[in-house]
Amino acid sequence: MKLLKLFILSFTFSVVTAQNQDSITLRKIYDHYLTQSKSYKNLETLCKTIGPRLSGSANAEKAVYWAKKAMYDAGADTVYLQPCMVTHWERGAKESAVISYSKTKNLKPLNLIALGGSVATPENGINAKVIEVKSFEELEQLGEKNIKGKIVFYNVFFNQKNIRTGTSYGETVKYRYAGASKAAKYGAVASVVRSMSSNASDSPHTGAMGYDTAVSKVKIPTFALSFLAADQLSADLKTDAELKLTLKSFCKSFPDAPSFNVIGEIKGSEKPNEYIITGGHLDSWDNGEGAHDDGAGVVQSIDALAMFKKMGIQPKHSIRAIAFMNEENGLGGGKAYGKETEEKNWKHIAAIETDAGGFTPRGFGVDTVGGMYKSVSAWLPLFKPYFISFINQGGGGADISPLEKFNVPCIGYEPDSQRYFDIHHTADDTFDKVNKRELELGGAAIGSLIYLIDKYK
Amino acid sequence: MKLLKLFILSFTFSVVTAQNQDSITLRKIYDHYLTQSKSYKNLETLCKTIGPRLSGSANAEKAVYWAKKAMYDAGADTVYLQPCMVTHWERGAKESAVISYSKTKNLKPLNLIALGGSVATPENGINAKVIEVKSFEELEQLGEKNIKGKIVFYNVFFNQKNIRTGTSYGETVKYRYAGASKAAKYGAVASVVRSMSSNASDSPHTGAMGYDTAVSKVKIPTFALSFLAADQLSADLKTDAELKLTLKSFCKSFPDAPSFNVIGEIKGSEKPNEYIITGGHLDSWDNGEGAHDDGAGVVQSIDALAMFKKMGIQPKHSIRAIAFMNEENGLGGGKAYGKETEEKNWKHIAAIETDAGGFTPRGFGVDTVGGMYKSVSAWLPLFKPYFISFINQGGGGADISPLEKFNVPCIGYEPDSQRYFDIHHTADDTFDKVNKRELELGGAAIGSLIYLIDKYK
Repeated sequence: MKLLKLFILSFTFSVVTAQNQDSITLRKIYDHYLTQSKSYKNLETLCKTIGPRLSGSANAEKAVYWAKKAMYDAGADTVYLQPCMVTHWERGAKESAVISYSKTKNLKPLNLIALGGSVATPENGINAKVIEVKSFEELEQLGEKNIKGKIVFYNVFFNQKNIRTGTSYGETVKYRYAGASKAAKYGAVASVVRSMSSNASDSPHTGAMGYDTAVSKVKIPTFALSFLAADQLSADLKTDAELKLTLKSFCKSFPDAPSFNVIGEIKGSEKPNEYIITGGHLDSWDNGEGAHDDGAGVVQSIDALAMFKKMGIQPKHSIRAIAFMNEENGLGGGKAYGKETEEKNWKHIAAIETDAGGFTPRGFGVDTVGGMYKSVSAWLPLFKPYFISFINQGGGGADISPLEKFNVPCIGYEPDSQRYFDIHHTADDTFDKVNKRELELGGAAIGSLIYLIDKYK
Repeated sequence: MKLLKLFILSFTFSVVTAQNQDSITLRKIYDHYLTQSKSYKNLETLCKTIGPRLSGSANAEKAVYWAKKAMYDAGADTVYLQPCMVTHWERGAKESAVISYSKTKNLKPLNLIALGGSVATPENGINAKVIEVKSFEELEQLGEKNIKGKIVFYNVFFNQKNIRTGTSYGETVKYRYAGASKAAKYGAVASVVRSMSSNASDSPHTGAMGYDTAVSKVKIPTFALSFLAADQLSADLKTDAELKLTLKSFCKSFPDAPSFNVIGEIKGSEKPNEYIITGGHLDSWDNGEGAHDDGAGVVQSIDALAMFKKMGIQPKHSIRAIAFMNEENGLGGGKAYGKETEEKNWKHIAAIETDAGGFTPRGFGVDTVGGMYKSVSAWLPLFKPYFISFINQGGGGADISPLEKFNVPCIGYEPDSQRYFDIHHTADDTFDKVNKRELELGGAAIGSLIYLIDKYK
């Protein structure tokens, strides 16, 4: 036998053996998660004993101390509270909308919700005619003469043809975020959007908006109609273009408030100053329980600590589970982590974010930085038995995005997306919508990936 | 350029072009399903205006005529009602179970449900001590001296480590199906099983059982406890082995009844006497709405007809959508279809069954017969954009199993399995548990597969 051939054979054998060993370890990791995971129980506690936890609220503060304890319970060597400043906005009393028809004088209430960051209406509300548009281009074409004094209604549907629902969200969320200032530019007195969803329900979807004073100095109140309310308004406008909408909201913005990210750490045995981090966000909107968004990501991240500790696996690098604060309406937590990374020159081997719901696993999106995409792609066969079917190029998440400029390979966990925007930012994002095994399989996928990164990178 | 090379290049070019054309057509098929499908609306009607439809019931009869109309609405050239004889069993009044403790004389009711096919208890119920077993082996070891006069409690859990939940079902369902006769052999007066589920809920899961008179001539009543009721009974037996259980049920078996499969057909242009069939089952258990099991499969199958008609695609082979009757407790419909296949010497190019719920798509299981597995595997790249990630060897379903002996390539549609056994055969299998897009994506996967089989086989 030629030496080269012998070498190749021996090399092949080593690779196969390594994959076999990893395959055995992954099976043990999945067994651990499917029989020992505390993630579902943790999520129940977070959703049911704390509940909604918008940044700056008393509940968000409670969630910080809950997360600290949960991380210690999971086996963290240390848990830090990392200070950050967060947006503080409050909804106040429940908002309302009523159609008054021009001919019949009948009234019809509509379900809607003020967008996070919106100013309130005057105490007696805003009463005005409505102009429906399908795009910013249409808004511009209509111009001030058609818009001034009216309520702009962005009636833009999710594109059902996208297979990933996140793509449809990405296409429409601009109307929620930037719609108010663009409407105000032409003299609109308020703006409403169709909820960012393809689910024909009567639950309105809130979410962050921002005023762009470069577009308009006037800040007008802005809302999301439920999918069905948007249908109703659009249908009514076809038969009664003169109808009026009365909108009331009571929201208020306060100065930024101090809060914390919660960072649970297991010290690495060989490279304790190099970090692999996995995070979700602890804050949620104020109208639901933040179960899928993003209690699921928080408990999956905490579970990664438990995996190492309870399975007796000693990582070489330090592992951090991070419960970020203020992802929903300011990113104060993510920015604070980025700032401390810069100040302390923290070296990150990889940063994983799980913020797409606790649904059944599908894959990961992985940055090419540092050869991470190449490595993770090579591990795909190890994940196939667990229905992880793709490793896509490019990944990450909002909370870890401030790490990108430090060339940290960012990774986004991608569960199935079909159900997410049915309940995203609504009162229906509750614990009962999460399936225990789907949540655990997601945790196991993330834990397995951290295990492999720690071993090989 | 050598001729061979030219030939290879030209061949490669043809294959690539064909795949590109198919890729474009599949995109159109998915667009059709995601924007035009009637499956969700059809499912709502089936679940909400008809509801439970156990074989032999008035509702099952209504469902037959509903399916006939739905198939014509979808564009079937012809709809046949294919006669079959079906099991006719009725639950009667709601069953009950009460623990009476030996020391305290306290009583505790438990949620349970009689299994389909079970005999009733005497009118005043059965009152007896309980013996818990973990397996048939343990039952045998205990033998008549420990079992006689008692109620056998098969307390067998789903194995959480299986990634496919159907595997766990397959491992435990024997206690539901065969447990009564095996217990009766040793003189048990009744048997109860832990529900076939990993969901810690209080909804009991019914399902078919059968008496094996070769094992025992005595037919004893048999039930499924809810997961939580099984926990309760097991915990109570640890502290009070002398407790008694009082069981009451009122079920009754009737002679087999006449019913129908519903077969909607689109005539093939080139080979009208060769069939590609896709089916689900129209009957359901009597305690839920049969939404995932298997209303979903029925409406997805009907939707395949609509795909050809509404998209203006003329199939070469005849396409049949089949709403089978009596899958749950007798397979009368599947057997009747098999019998007519034999009598008329019907030639089937492929038989697809969708009976694993209306969940997000994962893959297909495909028979190797007639090179079908090889063909479908080669098409996998076409399905990847739609998150169909595997083609497994071996497939089919109960209703189409009688076709196997005629060498029909059988195919089973495999959606994600994580949530199925949370609600399978319970009162919770209702329309609201089905996600519109997941249902439609499943339909599109099946429709696309039929399109490719029709084109290439």
